[in-house]
Amino acid sequence: MTVSFSELKETLKKVLLQLSFPQNKAEICADIFASNSRDGVHSHGLNRFPVFVDLVKKGLIDPMAEPECVEQNGLLEVWDGHLGAGTYNSSICMDRAIELAKKNSMSCVAIRNNNHWMRGGTYGWQAAEAGCIGICFTNASAGMPPWGGKEPRLGNNPLVIAVPHHEGHIVLDMAMSQFSYGKMQEYELKGRSLPFSGGYDREGNLSTDPVAIKQTKRALPAGFWKGSGLAMMMDILLAMLSGGRTTAKITASGNEYGLSQCFICIYKENLHQDLVDEIIAYTKTAIPVEAGTEIAYPGEQTLKRRIQSEKEGIIVDETMWKKVLSL
Amino acid sequence: MTVSFSELKETLKKVLLQLSFPQNKAEICADIFASNSRDGVHSHGLNRFPVFVDLVKKGLIDPMAEPECVEQNGLLEVWDGHLGAGTYNSSICMDRAIELAKKNSMSCVAIRNNNHWMRGGTYGWQAAEAGCIGICFTNASAGMPPWGGKEPRLGNNPLVIAVPHHEGHIVLDMAMSQFSYGKMQEYELKGRSLPFSGGYDREGNLSTDPVAIKQTKRALPAGFWKGSGLAMMMDILLAMLSGGRTTAKITASGNEYGLSQCFICIYKENLHQDLVDEIIAYTKTAIPVEAGTEIAYPGEQTLKRRIQSEKEGIIVDETMWKKVLSL
Repeated sequence: MTVSFSELKETLKKVLLQLSFPQNKAEICADIFASNSRDGVHSHGLNRFPVFVDLVKKGLIDPMAEPECVEQNGLLEVWDGHLGAGTYNSSICMDRAIELAKKNSMSCVAIRNNNHWMRGGTYGWQAAEAGCIGICFTNASAGMPPWGGKEPRLGNNPLVIAVPHHEGHIVLDMAMSQFSYGKMQEYELKGRSLPFSGGYDREGNLSTDPVAIKQTKRALPAGFWKGSGLAMMMDILLAMLSGGRTTAKITASGNEYGLSQCFICIYKENLHQDLVDEIIAYTKTAIPVEAGTEIAYPGEQTLKRRIQSEKEGIIVDETMWKKVLSL
Repeated sequence: MTVSFSELKETLKKVLLQLSFPQNKAEICADIFASNSRDGVHSHGLNRFPVFVDLVKKGLIDPMAEPECVEQNGLLEVWDGHLGAGTYNSSICMDRAIELAKKNSMSCVAIRNNNHWMRGGTYGWQAAEAGCIGICFTNASAGMPPWGGKEPRLGNNPLVIAVPHHEGHIVLDMAMSQFSYGKMQEYELKGRSLPFSGGYDREGNLSTDPVAIKQTKRALPAGFWKGSGLAMMMDILLAMLSGGRTTAKITASGNEYGLSQCFICIYKENLHQDLVDEIIAYTKTAIPVEAGTEIAYPGEQTLKRRIQSEKEGIIVDETMWKKVLSL
């Protein structure tokens, strides 16, 4: 079934207001959750909303908390999220990074004691929409073993790089495992194998079976040692800049809350859009592996899905929709 | 056979002086090539030196050129390399980024019309040694197909992230293909297969045979679509910031010269070294896949090799060493 963007957003907003979120915060949070579903990222949109509500009810997300700048070092600011809504705090931080970059060409805002920001791409699109290059990343609880190890010690810490582009922004939103557990579950529910190895089975062999991987908790880092190293660097950068909780501490706490994020912005008047066009056009001239398909730039599919959702409504899981309506 | 660092460096310096490099530039370039060999990156150290000399003789690298700042936008500077030595120009740019960051907390120096910087990690170590977080990347000629395509359209554009650490800096130096052609050649010379798929064979199947992959020129991006997207983003960021030649133009020119690089620095007094220790210690607690091995952080093996080279001399390929001695 499908619902319109405004119906989805208003429904979520109503729940947030009932949970004592102030009006402006309910507006921003509902908009982000609804936009994530609109862009096809259901796992961080409607489908994640009940988990978010649950964390609010448990007292792990404080609806009243406002993020606060606690350190200023030139264009590098450290903020404290005071365990407020991760999506709201993150959008405030990216707004601040945009503001600083527009005045000074660049900026970095790091936040600690924040909560899950849902889809990282959200803040990349936000920067690009404002005409800035945006780079942002988060940490998370351990869900992936480091390269050479068997037990989860790394967060699936996504990296987002976004640039403004006159024909649709270019937004890379990249988690560090080859397949997220959410994606693997989709394959599991359809009874299908992964198209490539996504982790290890009990015998320690690379596997395309999502069930076997879930059992071992040995999700495969993208590019093996490369995704593993990059995930570790994200956590290190966040700890260094924000002074917040590391993946070690988040994992030990038993709940995925109190995370850190970093928002880097770069602004420059002439961002050479003609050269970006050149890169995209050149990349698309490669003969496709499957005839009739086209090579996509990062974010291209997201934009297509967004346009489709706006025309035809947002596809929602009926059970999940009913669940949220009853909240 | 082994040679000492000073013998290697002085030998290279002598050649550079003969090629009319000014004293200070010959010193810096020789130091970088020798350091790359010392750190075990032979492909961008001694073994690459004859190629560098050849490009100088062809007139594609100008020994007299000095990099020049051509645009200042706050803390974002654009430099022109005037087709000078890539290693020298890059170290000047990272020095400038460090200087700006130490005064203003962060900085970005983008350079166009530069040449190959050899090992990207060099400039990461440089930033970390100066107490800064360093992020840098370069573009290159097309050597890898984009995801979904069969022909090379992306550079194997490496990304470097380095942070200072009291027990040895942490430096991630990550090319975008799963295995570089240099690494694949090492396996080929030993008559061995790659430990994981590194590209495609003629039938379009994933392959661990370095010879088959060389024939198709279909090297595999690390993490499939992820490495492909990240490689494309590097070229886009460089074009946007520097206005320099894209991978499309570099490839069309037939020689890998006139590249762009970007050097981002972040400086902050308290970089929470205790939290970095915590992350490393926690990551290392994962039970290793192979008993007796230890999980390494990015840069840990490089530092071990450096210390070994300093004690026992730098291992050099005898043929290559004789070749350079005869230059």
